[in-house]
Amino acid sequence: MVPSSSGLCRVGGEPVPGVGTYEDFNTIDWVREKSKDRDRHPRGKIATKSKESTWALVKGISDAFSGWLLMLLIGLMSGALAGGIDISAHWMTDLKEGVCLNGFWFNHEHCCWSSNETTFQERDKCPQWKSWAELIIGQSEGPFAYIMNYLLYVSWALLFAFLAVSLVRAFAPYACGSGIPEIKTILSGFIIRGYLGKWTLIIKTITLVLAVSSGLSLGKEGPLVHVACCCGNILCHLFTKYRKNEAKRREVLSAAAAVGVSVAFGAPIGGVLFSLEEVSYYFPLKTLWRSFFAALVAAFTLRSINPFGNSRLVLFYVEFHTPWHLLELLPFVLLGIFGGAWGAFFIRANIAWCRRRKSTRLGHYPVLEVLVVTAATAVLAFPNGYTRMSTSELISELFNDCGLLDASQLCTYANGSEPKSGGNALPDRPAGAEVYSAMWQLALALLFKVLVTVVTFGMKVPSGLFIPSMAVGAIAGRLLGVAVEQLAYYHHDWVIFRGWCSPGADCITPGLYAMVGAAACLGGVTRMTVSLVVIMFELTGGLEYIVPLMAATMTSKWVADAMGREGIYEAHIRLNGYPFLEPKEEFSHKTLAMDVMRPRRGDPPLSVLTRDGMTVEDVEGLIADTTYSGFPVVVSHESQRLMGFVLRRDLIISIENARKRQDGVVSSSRIFFAEYTPPQPASSPAPLKLRGIMDLSPFTVTDHTAMDIVVDIFRKLGLRQCLVTHNGRLLGIITKKDILKHMAQIANRDPDSILFN
Amino acid sequence: MVPSSSGLCRVGGEPVPGVGTYEDFNTIDWVREKSKDRDRHPRGKIATKSKESTWALVKGISDAFSGWLLMLLIGLMSGALAGGIDISAHWMTDLKEGVCLNGFWFNHEHCCWSSNETTFQERDKCPQWKSWAELIIGQSEGPFAYIMNYLLYVSWALLFAFLAVSLVRAFAPYACGSGIPEIKTILSGFIIRGYLGKWTLIIKTITLVLAVSSGLSLGKEGPLVHVACCCGNILCHLFTKYRKNEAKRREVLSAAAAVGVSVAFGAPIGGVLFSLEEVSYYFPLKTLWRSFFAALVAAFTLRSINPFGNSRLVLFYVEFHTPWHLLELLPFVLLGIFGGAWGAFFIRANIAWCRRRKSTRLGHYPVLEVLVVTAATAVLAFPNGYTRMSTSELISELFNDCGLLDASQLCTYANGSEPKSGGNALPDRPAGAEVYSAMWQLALALLFKVLVTVVTFGMKVPSGLFIPSMAVGAIAGRLLGVAVEQLAYYHHDWVIFRGWCSPGADCITPGLYAMVGAAACLGGVTRMTVSLVVIMFELTGGLEYIVPLMAATMTSKWVADAMGREGIYEAHIRLNGYPFLEPKEEFSHKTLAMDVMRPRRGDPPLSVLTRDGMTVEDVEGLIADTTYSGFPVVVSHESQRLMGFVLRRDLIISIENARKRQDGVVSSSRIFFAEYTPPQPASSPAPLKLRGIMDLSPFTVTDHTAMDIVVDIFRKLGLRQCLVTHNGRLLGIITKKDILKHMAQIANRDPDSILFN
Repeated sequence: MVPSSSGLCRVGGEPVPGVGTYEDFNTIDWVREKSKDRDRHPRGKIATKSKESTWALVKGISDAFSGWLLMLLIGLMSGALAGGIDISAHWMTDLKEGVCLNGFWFNHEHCCWSSNETTFQERDKCPQWKSWAELIIGQSEGPFAYIMNYLLYVSWALLFAFLAVSLVRAFAPYACGSGIPEIKTILSGFIIRGYLGKWTLIIKTITLVLAVSSGLSLGKEGPLVHVACCCGNILCHLFTKYRKNEAKRREVLSAAAAVGVSVAFGAPIGGVLFSLEEVSYYFPLKTLWRSFFAALVAAFTLRSINPFGNSRLVLFYVEFHTPWHLLELLPFVLLGIFGGAWGAFFIRANIAWCRRRKSTRLGHYPVLEVLVVTAATAVLAFPNGYTRMSTSELISELFNDCGLLDASQLCTYANGSEPKSGGNALPDRPAGAEVYSAMWQLALALLFKVLVTVVTFGMKVPSGLFIPSMAVGAIAGRLLGVAVEQLAYYHHDWVIFRGWCSPGADCITPGLYAMVGAAACLGGVTRMTVSLVVIMFELTGGLEYIVPLMAATMTSKWVADAMGREGIYEAHIRLNGYPFLEPKEEFSHKTLAMDVMRPRRGDPPLSVLTRDGMTVEDVEGLIADTTYSGFPVVVSHESQRLMGFVLRRDLIISIENARKRQDGVVSSSRIFFAEYTPPQPASSPAPLKLRGIMDLSPFTVTDHTAMDIVVDIFRKLGLRQCLVTHNGRLLGIITKKDILKHMAQIANRDPDSILFN
Repeated sequence: MVPSSSGLCRVGGEPVPGVGTYEDFNTIDWVREKSKDRDRHPRGKIATKSKESTWALVKGISDAFSGWLLMLLIGLMSGALAGGIDISAHWMTDLKEGVCLNGFWFNHEHCCWSSNETTFQERDKCPQWKSWAELIIGQSEGPFAYIMNYLLYVSWALLFAFLAVSLVRAFAPYACGSGIPEIKTILSGFIIRGYLGKWTLIIKTITLVLAVSSGLSLGKEGPLVHVACCCGNILCHLFTKYRKNEAKRREVLSAAAAVGVSVAFGAPIGGVLFSLEEVSYYFPLKTLWRSFFAALVAAFTLRSINPFGNSRLVLFYVEFHTPWHLLELLPFVLLGIFGGAWGAFFIRANIAWCRRRKSTRLGHYPVLEVLVVTAATAVLAFPNGYTRMSTSELISELFNDCGLLDASQLCTYANGSEPKSGGNALPDRPAGAEVYSAMWQLALALLFKVLVTVVTFGMKVPSGLFIPSMAVGAIAGRLLGVAVEQLAYYHHDWVIFRGWCSPGADCITPGLYAMVGAAACLGGVTRMTVSLVVIMFELTGGLEYIVPLMAATMTSKWVADAMGREGIYEAHIRLNGYPFLEPKEEFSHKTLAMDVMRPRRGDPPLSVLTRDGMTVEDVEGLIADTTYSGFPVVVSHESQRLMGFVLRRDLIISIENARKRQDGVVSSSRIFFAEYTPPQPASSPAPLKLRGIMDLSPFTVTDHTAMDIVVDIFRKLGLRQCLVTHNGRLLGIITKKDILKHMAQIANRDPDSILFN
């Protein structure tokens, strides 16, 4: 597991730079990292002098508080960035349609606020806001103006998308996508240098705004998690404790992921649960509390920025007031089934498309691909009001319960009955012609979103799929909600409606259906459960609606799981060949460690080092001949009794260093791993003592250990490799990659799809 | 870890009853239990015939759904029981003061509901409700009536307490206390037979009502967790999957603990987090989702019972509407410091008292103790209105924001300004004389609660300390809140109040202070963090107040931790000597496995079995001479190469069984653990093959492994013992008890305080 603490990272008393670090695209050893952190604390010795002890106390306190300070900083920075992204994206989205005469930096809503002339109903048609056609040719109506606006809408979209993809390609290729699959992999112990660096942060923030504004079918919620993790990673550099330790840093990143969701949905508790349930691998309870703190700080920072001018953290915050009826669970479960089916379809289609991108020439023209998809999206989106508006606005409108003052097309019911006094809710009424036309437009928008999202997710721009998934579900839910509402209105004498849907009563809330549909679709795609329900609960603010949400989410997960085990993030991890050992999936096969370990029967024996029988030359030959990332050390080839484990990287660095610095170390020098070096004859070259780099406590299992136990050990302890023994003799080795290959083989997948170790 | 799957629990092909089970007061082996569960699923083989495969599918689905069904049942049962307890306790608490003429089964509030004559203000003085003095001597006023009521109040309290303690002593000694320390220990893998049995459930439910009604300073919230866990354990017997597997059953119990908190505080999310943060040991993500489901079912069951007639799950649900000011964080932090100090004081005082009970003659008279404490509590409580009412009602009144119609003594402010129209809130006003007298009474109540709670918790009746702790904090908070309010009223021109506390403005909410104080005190005693904040958040329903709650809880935890590391539950676990390996505490000493393992230097060598060198007599002698719960099996005494591990219990059962059933097995029979038994000479007695009971994959670590890693392995994998090797040779053994003793030694505690293994 770790070299003995006295000799950690040292050879001959002096630390060798590089020993104990990792290469890019490698997996860390959690146990080793945790031990390194322990070695930092000199708690074994108790300071004798009171002055020293005061100093130690101060250091101890500052050490403990550095974690909290870091959380505070991450919260502040992520909250501020999220606010900036929200405001810029809002403004640039509106820029596609027109500009504000009071000042070009106002968005549509803001522009109309500052004009005092308009009444509440006409807020959207204020004179200061000019569409491009109005500004350029002076016409706001007519086919010519429409075409003008259309063309400018598409041009702006293309410009934004082009800028986004160019910036990503030029400065930070890691800034594309949602980032959550990679963050999951990184949190599980993988190293991708630069993935959470400052360039990625800067470019991702800018291009995220551009991509969202271009009108592509993508959201900013997933990428916000990446942005928050970048903040966390960068701020880690301020504190030695976190900069130098990969395990500690991952604790911070888990908290940062919670922060990301907290600012994306205004849901601090949901964010923490998301981090716990979905992305984190190692989540000690201390992290839970700190994550919660960071998530709250971020949420309050964002709220004080107030990007939407409604004191809310998200555009689609709602408050429902009408209760739901037990019979409504049936349509909610239907929405769950739809969500599950959509999730399974989306994952298959998207993975197939991404595989095609990887394997065909399509992948060679990422800029062209983005431009074509953007052009298609913009051209198809403009004519339909529901696709032209930003997806967040669409969701907000769909979630919204029709109030008295609502001017939305979705709320133009026939004035069948008198509005009730007080309250926001209106009784059920027959839908007017405009509602029917809105239904048609929504149905088309549904089809459009379903198709376009499949090709959008995975392009070389920052793209999240929370919002598009929610939009699909919200449209389906609203359609179903209005249908049930009209059914209840026209057939309130049916048995099922009798009692709770009398005429004039307000019994169906189509907005709630939209919300339940959104949860179901998001659940189908990501397979989130508790965190999803809690996020939705925080969006509505009422415990009342947890049951519908839960019913839909549960159904959706079951349906989606029946059609394909993996969520979208796991599917993308597998597509990219990252070494990720899914902590949720149960390993249920009865294979034993001996079936998985290498060498297999018939293979050449395991390459091992011996305690004192090898020269520098022998070892260099072994290194040159093999590509293994580490070698077990045994007492002798005959006994095969295990002493320890040496990492290839440490071995290379140490030998190189000794050859340069240490007098008398030549090719024929003998290498000793034993504690005591026997006296050497005077003629022989100086020996090289390498006990310091040897891990004296490698993990071992016996060859009869069931593989599910081995998998459990790897997951829970975060191992990279484990040695296999039989009756006390070394027999073989199992690495994380071996396990992943074995699991792929069992699932009838290509075992070579796992690319890294 | 586990005998090879082919030979699990079998000797000579036939399963031996008893092999693979545990004795009372022993720790389970998690790895072994999980493997047993895996062996239940024959997924290795794929059914060939379609009929079989359909059957397997049906079985698989019913298997998967049995877990959900179990959760549903636990939710329904616990919710119903909690509702029953609430209603009965409410009624019996009121019975101490009087009776309803409309029907003796009505409680005070219910009685007055049914009377139509009274107005809202006089609701509490309805003619149907008669105090005992009124009923017996026809007087409701005057010193004689007061003494009469006083005496009857004390008598009822003594009767209830006597019944409670007698029932506990006679039928279910495990029903006493809060149960949470024991549940934590059980969830960590310990076995206490009958602790979660049906007698405990029945007696705990009845005595809980009696104890709460007797007016003792205790709450029903902690015991409700025990009740829910009993429900979970009993319902487990309906499903083979959970009945037979100790690990699976503990997953259910974790969910049941969440259910308990969910019904206790009406906080399903908080309950799940409580289970995750505070009580659970092994909490896979699947459990998270199921716990959430069960917690919701329970909450909705309880709500449909509607025990308080307010559609809420708890008496002290509140909704605040006024915002808080950043400067108010200062008094909130002060409340946090108070809470932390109270927590640390309470734990020390309570543990000292419990230790005294254990070690002196006090412990021999539990009934007398309960009666004396009850009498003292009742005598002291009656004269003060705030201690006479039930603690839940007290908390409810303290949390409550003074509204326009409030008739409470705490809200009789001088009519300094006109009430604002609309809304529940009133502007700050000078306190009237009644408020000052209420303050005095509250201060006395605070002193009373602090002292009485220390001696109450730990008596032989069911007793929770959530409610008494919250009451202490709520009183302190309300006192501080009123003080700040008056300060702001009289000095609204001070710099700190300027701007937000102008006269007539409603700037201080004393109820919020009470709530923050309650959270701080509860946090100080239990050291809960996230779950506490979420529970409080669910009680208030506003994200707005999370920051004050968080500031107070955080301060409280820091202050309390600085004065003593342990929470009350850990302290009681240690007091009882249970083998509990705290998952939160970090092990930060630099000892190695060789410092902890047995045999120590100078001790006789480790008792081992050999592969084929021992006879039945030898082994029986070894069993008789030692008390170890298991023996390693080595190839030979000379090589000390480890083959496996055999548990003492399995060994005894198998030899006994073989002597009875197997022909020719006598004392001189040789025992074989090898895979192949060499041919025996015809004259020798029949050999006994015991490979089947040997665990072929025992966990091993090397002697150089740092103890923090060993502790980590024990915690994460739930081990009972681990073997220590050096260069492939067996050197010693480390058990959970050894680790706990080592940790006690390091912390300068008595290592012999750990009683069980």
